[in-house]
Amino acid sequence: MFSQIEDFHDWLADEERSHAFDVRPVPLEDLTGWSFHPDTGVIGHHTGRFFTISGLLVDTDQGPVRSWSQPIIVQPETGILGILVKRFGGVPHFLLQAKMEPGNIRPVQLSPTVQATRSNYTRVHGGRPVPYLEYFQTPRRGRVVADVLQQEQGSWFLHKRNRNIIVEVDEEVPVLPGFCWLTGEQIGELILIDNLVNMDTRTVLAGYPPAPGPEDPEVRDASDVAALSWFTEARAGRRLDRGLIPLNEVKDWVRADGRISHRLDRYFSVMGVSVEIDNREVSRWSQPMVAPRERGVIAFLARRPPASDDLELLVRAHTQAGTFDVVEMAPTVQCAPGNHDPDRRPPFLDHVLSAPPERILLDVVHSEEGGRLYHAENRYLIVEVDADFPDDVGEDFRWMDARRLARFGRHCDHVELEARSLLACLRFLDPFPRQGAHR
Amino acid sequence: MFSQIEDFHDWLADEERSHAFDVRPVPLEDLTGWSFHPDTGVIGHHTGRFFTISGLLVDTDQGPVRSWSQPIIVQPETGILGILVKRFGGVPHFLLQAKMEPGNIRPVQLSPTVQATRSNYTRVHGGRPVPYLEYFQTPRRGRVVADVLQQEQGSWFLHKRNRNIIVEVDEEVPVLPGFCWLTGEQIGELILIDNLVNMDTRTVLAGYPPAPGPEDPEVRDASDVAALSWFTEARAGRRLDRGLIPLNEVKDWVRADGRISHRLDRYFSVMGVSVEIDNREVSRWSQPMVAPRERGVIAFLARRPPASDDLELLVRAHTQAGTFDVVEMAPTVQCAPGNHDPDRRPPFLDHVLSAPPERILLDVVHSEEGGRLYHAENRYLIVEVDADFPDDVGEDFRWMDARRLARFGRHCDHVELEARSLLACLRFLDPFPRQGAHR
Repeated sequence: MFSQIEDFHDWLADEERSHAFDVRPVPLEDLTGWSFHPDTGVIGHHTGRFFTISGLLVDTDQGPVRSWSQPIIVQPETGILGILVKRFGGVPHFLLQAKMEPGNIRPVQLSPTVQATRSNYTRVHGGRPVPYLEYFQTPRRGRVVADVLQQEQGSWFLHKRNRNIIVEVDEEVPVLPGFCWLTGEQIGELILIDNLVNMDTRTVLAGYPPAPGPEDPEVRDASDVAALSWFTEARAGRRLDRGLIPLNEVKDWVRADGRISHRLDRYFSVMGVSVEIDNREVSRWSQPMVAPRERGVIAFLARRPPASDDLELLVRAHTQAGTFDVVEMAPTVQCAPGNHDPDRRPPFLDHVLSAPPERILLDVVHSEEGGRLYHAENRYLIVEVDADFPDDVGEDFRWMDARRLARFGRHCDHVELEARSLLACLRFLDPFPRQGAHR
Repeated sequence: MFSQIEDFHDWLADEERSHAFDVRPVPLEDLTGWSFHPDTGVIGHHTGRFFTISGLLVDTDQGPVRSWSQPIIVQPETGILGILVKRFGGVPHFLLQAKMEPGNIRPVQLSPTVQATRSNYTRVHGGRPVPYLEYFQTPRRGRVVADVLQQEQGSWFLHKRNRNIIVEVDEEVPVLPGFCWLTGEQIGELILIDNLVNMDTRTVLAGYPPAPGPEDPEVRDASDVAALSWFTEARAGRRLDRGLIPLNEVKDWVRADGRISHRLDRYFSVMGVSVEIDNREVSRWSQPMVAPRERGVIAFLARRPPASDDLELLVRAHTQAGTFDVVEMAPTVQCAPGNHDPDRRPPFLDHVLSAPPERILLDVVHSEEGGRLYHAENRYLIVEVDADFPDDVGEDFRWMDARRLARFGRHCDHVELEARSLLACLRFLDPFPRQGAHR
């Protein structure tokens, strides 16, 4: 436990120094244990496990581009992302881990207590057992405060889901090297630092329940139904057809110089890395990764309704290549600006990028999944608009208070990963409403 | 509107008399417009629309039989099931329709205000426009009180979903011939009559919101999380792999005498019917149907916790061939007894079938979807057990109060069709808790 946040930073600096690591790009052809399938070009591991990089053909009635093909990470297994909570002196503390991931820009970041793919925790690669795993498996002793299957980024992953689980315990918990207890307040401070709280931690923390709002239960139920009806309308009205295709049949993507890239140099590349690292389950390996072309922008427009203590967020009904069930609730803006022609800028992007400083409630750069994505980061923003900003800004958008969005996030396939990252910030940071059990 | 329920029965008798119809089984080979694909044996319509009957290969780690293949109805489109509500003298009335369906045992049943496949309402078969459809399409004038995508039976349909929507309006609504307004109380009476309130009506009515219970919002949220954690555990822990295969490669099923049946004469047959009917969009057609082998048993065990006004139901985490997302919340018992070897009787089936009369809170036979299923009916039961019936009856089961289960039903892919049928009964009938807006 850290009585001051400086102590945490000292501890983290020690952790960083103690991690010897070396991550270097290598041509896809040189990856040990990985190869291109001779017929399809699909990249896979010789054991048939971990993940593959395949081709995906997408056909939809949404968005400016309605039919395309792309490489996609296929990993049809369910990992565990678990955070352990324990009260010390009545104050909830969260057990996080300083963990190196090969794709991270800042190599060591704060990850959940447990962050394990099924391959990890069933130890197909013969690594060490996953510490603390037993707290998240049945029969468990603690109290589950959040537990839901959530998807990863739909633009790069096909149906990859993780179980996001928070368990509170009363018993003594040994703190292993590399792990630390942090309060909600400390997390609120650290989540404002670029590339420190990793994606897995953010998506789990987004589920940490706030106190219920002051809403009357009957009003709350009726408002939930209205919001869900908007969601149903979007799901029922859209078409999203997908099929896996050979990687070597993906149109407009070329394999050259040991990587696979789009011919316009947009979106992302598939590349290889060779990794040496001293505190992972396995200390040396190589693997393919997906490297986005540029930093993305992920933002909510927010307004403060006069009669409420909660922020209202402009939520978007969003369809991505890998979305499990056609549509999820997403931030107002979510894009890599360079992927869009000037005449097809996503709605509200310019509004966000040109907001005056006093309207910017949050502005922080966070990393995405460092185990499959290479140097993937996004600028996360919350931009306030006037309370009288129009209610109706098109059928793809809907104002929804943050508490309600967080509550929908208890149900799988409702709230997109990127929105969960922003909800985690909102949940833990000042000056936002932050009542709740952890106070 | 009917001041007495006898008036309704007189009206229905008139409706029945005015419907001239003739449904007769015909060999699959004789269906007009339908044929077997020469290579795969898949049954389809010459337009490529409506639905197909294909083969499905299932492989799972659940249940006594873990790998099988079967015929399955494939209809990857989203229909609309909508019920219009309007208050007369402050009392909500529901607009239902006396409708003939070719598969019904009792031919004319009460169906929703709108019951339309996408093929219906986009009129690919050149039929008449669907009355009242405009109330359920945007922009709509009324207030949405329920709106969710729900699946049909997972044993016979692959991913067939309908939008289940209830809209309340204040304006004048013309009552077309064949339609009538019924109060919640009248529905509560009629839902106790065998084969009268059809499946589509039941699944929509299950979503009619009860008043929120007396639970403290914070307690309610925590209990929701605990119940959803059980659901997540089941989803994350189970495997369900499926793939469409040619219908003529389905193992253990034989085509003979104009139908396709299982070699043990279990489960169901695929058969053909020829239909002549006078009040449908099209008055004459033929089509394939699925005919279950016998009447099924669908039951909740229920108990009355001392401190609650709500019934607790023993909910099962259930996986079926066509379940969209591995597991849904289902009744305690759901089976056709004859499909099971005597040494593999489903849990609690004998408990339900041997319950003494005073423990049986509900016992009624209802029909399933009459448009695709032929003479499909199930006996629906709610059987009370002692309040001290064990809490822990295995990880597949969990006690859950009816109000909570109904609330989860607002989210798609949570509550199975069969459970929704029982919830509809609970919602509308005496002597069950029945507070709410319609009182």
